[in-house]
Amino acid sequence: MATTDLSAVQFDDRGLVPAIVQDATSGEVLMLAWMNEESLGLTLERKLTWFWSRSRKELWNKGATSGNLQHVADVLYDCDGDALVVKVHADGPACHTGERTCFYRSLGGEV
Amino acid sequence: MATTDLSAVQFDDRGLVPAIVQDATSGEVLMLAWMNEESLGLTLERKLTWFWSRSRKELWNKGATSGNLQHVADVLYDCDGDALVVKVHADGPACHTGERTCFYRSLGGEV
Repeated sequence: MATTDLSAVQFDDRGLVPAIVQDATSGEVLMLAWMNEESLGLTLERKLTWFWSRSRKELWNKGATSGNLQHVADVLYDCDGDALVVKVHADGPACHTGERTCFYRSLGGEV
Repeated sequence: MATTDLSAVQFDDRGLVPAIVQDATSGEVLMLAWMNEESLGLTLERKLTWFWSRSRKELWNKGATSGNLQHVADVLYDCDGDALVVKVHADGPACHTGERTCFYRSLGGEV
């Protein structure tokens, strides 16, 4: 597999970039997590989502424990290079609560 | 207009939360920007997107200059309360480059 040039991606002062995970089919936003350069490299290489856990301070492969893997269809970066959209086909819910998406509650109270 | 309870939202140590702006109709992710408590309050109250500019260190109303306002249909928060999805109907492109979305380039080279 060819090495992807990551120079377009701007990691912040913690070495992290926010990654928006989106269902490649429905367009639903599933979660937001953080990637460092290593986890982004693993994501591109293995076509599964890898993140950096800010609380546990370790790499994590989403779904490795739960079985709810996210298969990567595409990784987009924004005009400033400081945010990513990762389009995925998910084997199960994104949220640890069992909800399909972590964004299941509204602030507006209008849903 | 009722005051919305923002206590579910976890602002980071800079007082900010990432806001994913999504087209309410197409589901396309348009941009990621940052909100502080004041800009989130303005967004909910005025039903237009307000952000905190980390570089300029000031509030900004998206589209106030360009005319490309984003009309807010809903604001969702995630399971941890530390990320938002703002669903909008946009009057024009989200990106300063003129692209409809800021996420118009792929890292995978497979688009």
